Amino acid sequence: VEKKQVLYTLGELAKLLDVTLSGQADIGISGLATLKTAGPGQLSFLSNPRYTSQLSNCHASALIIHPDQADKSPCACLISDAPYVTYARASQLFTPVDPVSDTPAIHPTASISASAKLSADVIVGAHAIIEDRATIGAGSRIGAGTSIGRDVSIGKNSILYANVTIYHQVSIGNNCILHSGVIIGADGFGFAFDGARSIKIAQLGGVRIGHDVEIGASSTIDRGALDDTIIEQGVKIDNQVQIGHNCIIGKHTIICGCTCIAGSTTVGSYCMIGGASAFAGHLTIADKVTVSAMAMVTKSLGPGAWSSGTGVMESSIWRKNVVRFSQLNEMSKRLRELERSTDVKE
Amino acid sequence: VEKKQVLYTLGELAKLLDVTLSGQADIGISGLATLKTAGPGQLSFLSNPRYTSQLSNCHASALIIHPDQADKSPCACLISDAPYVTYARASQLFTPVDPVSDTPAIHPTASISASAKLSADVIVGAHAIIEDRATIGAGSRIGAGTSIGRDVSIGKNSILYANVTIYHQVSIGNNCILHSGVIIGADGFGFAFDGARSIKIAQLGGVRIGHDVEIGASSTIDRGALDDTIIEQGVKIDNQVQIGHNCIIGKHTIICGCTCIAGSTTVGSYCMIGGASAFAGHLTIADKVTVSAMAMVTKSLGPGAWSSGTGVMESSIWRKNVVRFSQLNEMSKRLRELERSTDVKE
Amino acid sequence: VEKKQVLYTLGELAKLLDVTLSGQADIGISGLATLKTAGPGQLSFLSNPRYTSQLSNCHASALIIHPDQADKSPCACLISDAPYVTYARASQLFTPVDPVSDTPAIHPTASISASAKLSADVIVGAHAIIEDRATIGAGSRIGAGTSIGRDVSIGKNSILYANVTIYHQVSIGNNCILHSGVIIGADGFGFAFDGARSIKIAQLGGVRIGHDVEIGASSTIDRGALDDTIIEQGVKIDNQVQIGHNCIIGKHTIICGCTCIAGSTTVGSYCMIGGASAFAGHLTIADKVTVSAMAMVTKSLGPGAWSSGTGVMESSIWRKNVVRFSQLNEMSKRLRELERSTDVKE
Repeated sequence: VEKKQVLYTLGELAKLLDVTLSGQADIGISGLATLKTAGPGQLSFLSNPRYTSQLSNCHASALIIHPDQADKSPCACLISDAPYVTYARASQLFTPVDPVSDTPAIHPTASISASAKLSADVIVGAHAIIEDRATIGAGSRIGAGTSIGRDVSIGKNSILYANVTIYHQVSIGNNCILHSGVIIGADGFGFAFDGARSIKIAQLGGVRIGHDVEIGASSTIDRGALDDTIIEQGVKIDNQVQIGHNCIIGKHTIICGCTCIAGSTTVGSYCMIGGASAFAGHLTIADKVTVSAMAMVTKSLGPGAWSSGTGVMESSIWRKNVVRFSQLNEMSKRLRELERSTDVKE
Repeated sequence: VEKKQVLYTLGELAKLLDVTLSGQADIGISGLATLKTAGPGQLSFLSNPRYTSQLSNCHASALIIHPDQADKSPCACLISDAPYVTYARASQLFTPVDPVSDTPAIHPTASISASAKLSADVIVGAHAIIEDRATIGAGSRIGAGTSIGRDVSIGKNSILYANVTIYHQVSIGNNCILHSGVIIGADGFGFAFDGARSIKIAQLGGVRIGHDVEIGASSTIDRGALDDTIIEQGVKIDNQVQIGHNCIIGKHTIICGCTCIAGSTTVGSYCMIGGASAFAGHLTIADKVTVSAMAMVTKSLGPGAWSSGTGVMESSIWRKNVVRFSQLNEMSKRLRELERSTDVKE
Repeated sequence: VEKKQVLYTLGELAKLLDVTLSGQADIGISGLATLKTAGPGQLSFLSNPRYTSQLSNCHASALIIHPDQADKSPCACLISDAPYVTYARASQLFTPVDPVSDTPAIHPTASISASAKLSADVIVGAHAIIEDRATIGAGSRIGAGTSIGRDVSIGKNSILYANVTIYHQVSIGNNCILHSGVIIGADGFGFAFDGARSIKIAQLGGVRIGHDVEIGASSTIDRGALDDTIIEQGVKIDNQVQIGHNCIIGKHTIICGCTCIAGSTTVGSYCMIGGASAFAGHLTIADKVTVSAMAMVTKSLGPGAWSSGTGVMESSIWRKNVVRFSQLNEMSKRLRELERSTDVKE
């Protein structure tokens, strides 16, 4: 293991994270690690009580821990009522490199329209393209090879990693993070069939993305047909998610990877959408709804937790059950017939 | 609401769309909007009779409407036997900006092989790459950062948006639209297992894409192993669709987002493939087949409508039903046993 | 059919492939084709006995064939105990063009940091970007527009096609193939909810990819939260696969297209993971496990073959069965009640 450089003392971290220090303030911390792998100089955390038993073998120099468990800690502590949140804040202090670039501010190979407006401290990577009348707010960073279309507006302190594509007339808020491969504002999927072929419906709306939104690698959000597609503030979207035209995703909703939401569906605020789930179009999902992974959502959902699908089983057993599934309505009828014939009430 | 510029008079639109005008020809139209949101200067449409009740509150200056409903319109009308098709055609008249670029024709930062052949009026965006012997037909537009491989042929009036990737030896027809992130001609997924490791099967075929094909953002179509992968004319493919090597997709078929079609499957013409569905390899799907969203297609399909999966329900109920699904074959046997013991005939 | 150039004699191929020649050594071979489409000058193969009947109509000049079937061949043979593996090796001899570029070695438009270290025979395409301290091993090829982040290490003879994105601190082994749109090292999806909003957990780990790994177009592999995400040697990943942070994929495992593996799941070696399947996080999958296409894997799996889902059926029948699925637990109870009332033992 290489010797890591001390980045903070524990006392500095306690102040930065606004938590209580229990132990020596001058302990040097070089990085973060899990309970299992942490060694000297590293800060770890206990959030899930399931892992309490790992404390005895923990070699970290310090722990972020809940006051109720602090007495079990084998080392110095940063005591927090919300250890996982404190760990999240701490992790941000240890980000090793600027994700895009630090110098020069505007790479000489970037292609920037004369009518684009960039705040003075914007960073633009190599071969990035910024088209006419785009505006980029203070502190935002545009990754290498990223393409920003005409009349796009990007707020302050947002990060677009390498090879992102933003079509024309899209607005993105402050403090957003868009990972590589993200595509915002491609045409929604709309056609009118004239009896022989599909006539394209031009997608004349845009996309509006609020503040503090993160969008994972290769996710796609289509522009609206007439009105805009809207992603409200604080929404977090994982990789390879597809959001169709005119969807509205309510604030602070979480959408896990590979989810597909068809057009004109409205998802409420503070929802938790499991990965690889699929939503039909024109649905309304209430606030604070939980949808489990791989759910097939074909109707609007009220509050609560929702699921679909069947669990994994040995293939030999599954094959037989699948045949029975195709006979399920018939089985139900036979069951009812039996009940009738034996005078058992339903 | 900002004052929008009049783009057409209603009389001009009636002529351009080849429909009957009912009302004043000199009404100025600045844009399109839904029945709900349209205001003065905007053209709306009524296609789905479900929305007829919205007519009374509609503030549009004009409506595209079916002759049977024209008497209910509160404003001027463009009367069409196919209002949705007319709306589609109208939408194309209101596209606000050229999606790629208007000037200069060939961006000075584009990297174009000396052996590539571009028709005189081709537009190429910044940092685009066109490799040896590629040919680009008249009026086609290559977006910023898009990469066109060797020996690729692109027809007339096709649009490739920013950051598209076309591998070598791919042909694309006229009037195609390929959205950002599309990748055509990556290797099909083929390996021979030698008992210890997977030996790559070089993918020696290409991809042939017909006229009038649209392919959504981040969709991928693999090159064939020996023969070509084929997308016939008029096919429309939504975002994040994966089409494996040696598939053939029949003309005018529609494939919704996040669908996965494994290698060597042939899909017929005029099919409607629901989103997030998955097809096994080596299947044959008939013409005009409808497959519902998230269907798992593990066998060849004849004509008709096909589905699979289970509908969404409250998670607490779902958990119990899922357990029963794993007992379904056993339940079926018990049912039969009961029938036997009670002399009920199946 | 155009006259193809002879690339090898059959005698040369027998030597290169280390198999037995039966027939004339001087037969000229210009390419490979399937049994059905092969013509004069082409080499075909018979691997699956199902296709034996096609031998009689085969017009190939030579066949790769198993010794047990060689007497049925209508033409010269390359006799192999593993015809499909021999075909795989042969296919590599017929790859028509260098997939990235042949000249010049470093395209003048590439943007390469002064601190990056490239071996002398590395090829870098137009507009590629190689950031600080990245190292590229001998014989590796970096496609046009591809972005290589800081402190990335790429081994020997690896190919990254056009428009690949590698974030900082990722290591990639020798002989790897990464197709266009691949994104390695984007942030894992981790947030701590503070009661009002999601606090980002900085993703401080990296990604380590072993030797001989192939990754299909638009697949994404996230960097670890604290430890690294690991893809072991010989793993083959198809298109549009998503692998979450801190996953470990065991050596020589095959993952078919559109599969989604949530964070911290460990998949064993030599597994076969069907396409469009989805794995929950924090699972452990044994070695040599087979998972069928579109399976929903919500628990750890021991050895064997595993499946889930329901098969496709006519939509009209499906609709009725789906309703019954939602009543399945109740049906089970009614069945038990009937059994009790009729004294039938389970």
